[in-house]
Amino acid sequence: MLKVPQYVDDISPYVPGKPIEELERELGISNSVKLASNENPLGPSPLALDEIAKHTGTLNRYPDGGAYALRSLLAQAHGVDIEEVIVGAGTNELIDIAIRAFQQPGDETIMGSPSFIVYYISSAKADGTPVKVPLTQDYCLDLIAMCDKITGKTKIICIANPNNPTGTIVTKDDLREFYKRLPDNILVIMDEAYYEYAVSNSSYPDSMVNFREGKNILILRTFSKAYGLAGLRIGYGIAKSQITGAMNKIREPFNTSTLAQHAAIAALKDTEHVRRAVEVNAEGKAYLYKELAALGIDFVRSETNFIYMDLKKNAVEIYNKLLKMGMIIRPMGAADTTTIRVTIGLPAENEAFIRTLKEAL
Amino acid sequence: MLKVPQYVDDISPYVPGKPIEELERELGISNSVKLASNENPLGPSPLALDEIAKHTGTLNRYPDGGAYALRSLLAQAHGVDIEEVIVGAGTNELIDIAIRAFQQPGDETIMGSPSFIVYYISSAKADGTPVKVPLTQDYCLDLIAMCDKITGKTKIICIANPNNPTGTIVTKDDLREFYKRLPDNILVIMDEAYYEYAVSNSSYPDSMVNFREGKNILILRTFSKAYGLAGLRIGYGIAKSQITGAMNKIREPFNTSTLAQHAAIAALKDTEHVRRAVEVNAEGKAYLYKELAALGIDFVRSETNFIYMDLKKNAVEIYNKLLKMGMIIRPMGAADTTTIRVTIGLPAENEAFIRTLKEAL
Repeated sequence: MLKVPQYVDDISPYVPGKPIEELERELGISNSVKLASNENPLGPSPLALDEIAKHTGTLNRYPDGGAYALRSLLAQAHGVDIEEVIVGAGTNELIDIAIRAFQQPGDETIMGSPSFIVYYISSAKADGTPVKVPLTQDYCLDLIAMCDKITGKTKIICIANPNNPTGTIVTKDDLREFYKRLPDNILVIMDEAYYEYAVSNSSYPDSMVNFREGKNILILRTFSKAYGLAGLRIGYGIAKSQITGAMNKIREPFNTSTLAQHAAIAALKDTEHVRRAVEVNAEGKAYLYKELAALGIDFVRSETNFIYMDLKKNAVEIYNKLLKMGMIIRPMGAADTTTIRVTIGLPAENEAFIRTLKEAL
Repeated sequence: MLKVPQYVDDISPYVPGKPIEELERELGISNSVKLASNENPLGPSPLALDEIAKHTGTLNRYPDGGAYALRSLLAQAHGVDIEEVIVGAGTNELIDIAIRAFQQPGDETIMGSPSFIVYYISSAKADGTPVKVPLTQDYCLDLIAMCDKITGKTKIICIANPNNPTGTIVTKDDLREFYKRLPDNILVIMDEAYYEYAVSNSSYPDSMVNFREGKNILILRTFSKAYGLAGLRIGYGIAKSQITGAMNKIREPFNTSTLAQHAAIAALKDTEHVRRAVEVNAEGKAYLYKELAALGIDFVRSETNFIYMDLKKNAVEIYNKLLKMGMIIRPMGAADTTTIRVTIGLPAENEAFIRTLKEAL
């Protein structure tokens, strides 16, 4: 009999937002709306699509495993050395790689709760001990409480800034105090997947400053959100070369596809697409705030492209009712039975959400 | 100071075949030929390219993490249940996932030497002990010697069939004896990345028979070789659901891209493209056998799209000479100082290889 190690068997895999095709196949419907995965509702960057079309002819060749052109561009854009840039199949993969590179079995990784579930899963997959720290009453990561959890076994602290699923940020001041207390043998994974939506907030910290100070920080950004390339699987990390070097030992040699690399290069240059995404998001957010307030629903003000709200009713039941109306959102799961997370979509999608939510409630 | 675990620090990452653009950038040349990575010289399946063009508009959406459509088609093609199919970013990723799912720190994974280097790296990355077993004098995996290395700590045996880099196969008879001796607590990774090139050989075993017998076997196939989709990163595994189930706990939720899934579906149906790839390969192989024999070079007869040969001279020096002539092949590295592996290309590429090799020798 094959034996699966207990720590592997114990893992509950990540449950993705339901794909539109899957829902429509199951229910025999069409024109459903997906507000479950924090995708860019404007679509992919048009410049990226042009670039994809130019590179399909060489798909029989392996990608450039070192992603030279993309990493060069990112290094230039951020004023860092190319060796300080690592590219991965979304930030998911980079989180997993960083944890494998720095957390040994029995070591501890500290994270918020609720926060991005992949920290928990990746720590557990590597036979580590994920340490969950409840958010503050304002649904923010509690950096003080997270520091209090540091032990001799702590190797990594995961900070989603903004936090997923609550949409809140830790501020410059919070982070300054945090770094004062942080021992220098701990890696900080600073997950900025929603950076583009948060950066205009004057309290939002500039992690590149901490990087330049020599902190043990891995800054993660993605092309899956504001850049609109979730389907291609590409994101990147910035860290000093000791950190990227260890991660490159764990990284699969061809972890990103040729098309993803070329599309990301084009998308980076498509600042207009990101600007529009952020603008449409701000308008949709204002509309949803107003409508949710009118419905008397408790929601958390968001620095991202999604809103976390407490329906004070069984969230899975509401989720299922909405599904039947062709509206896909995200119930937050077992520990959090009355809350949902809803992506901010196009105006018509946001209106459809409010309409179906009223009906479901 | 951050500390990298010793077993991570000890890893030498996989060195990919040099990308054409990188060589041309370094040397300021063009029209170079790459025979280093066992790619399909005919290019990607044209049906796959059509399918890619149809699906770029939805790249702002996450892929179907469950790869439902592709797995359904594969299940149907192989007469297995969809739960018995797992899709990954090339067989590389599936090897890594399987080892993480079944090998704990200190456990042993047995493999040939030389064989596909990713077995070694993936075992070491998970703090396992890779156990290398020399090939037979005929450059074949030595299944008897591999069985002799089984201990109480052995969890996985990796069989590349055909073997990379030597191009040889283990036969039906060899494999029957192997399974007689194999304890039932060991996973066999049966890596059939070059299946399409070997299957016409009547001695080549049908692993699906072993799968149906209930063996602990993970059969791996890829779209990177005969199907010509290396740049997209997609391959698959077939195993009983206990094995795929454990692997799904380790697998990243969105490990393959939308375009890779759709392209693979189309490529699977493009049997004509694979047939031509195999035909062109057989012709190129016959040409290279004749020319290498005429040059008095020792080579191993291959069941794949590459040829392993012993130049009896320093292979890295020859490799560098060839590079300067715009010819990229693969020297086999430290332990194997006089051998190279050369991909079978189009007729003009094969002729260019022979011409430049003569000059370099």
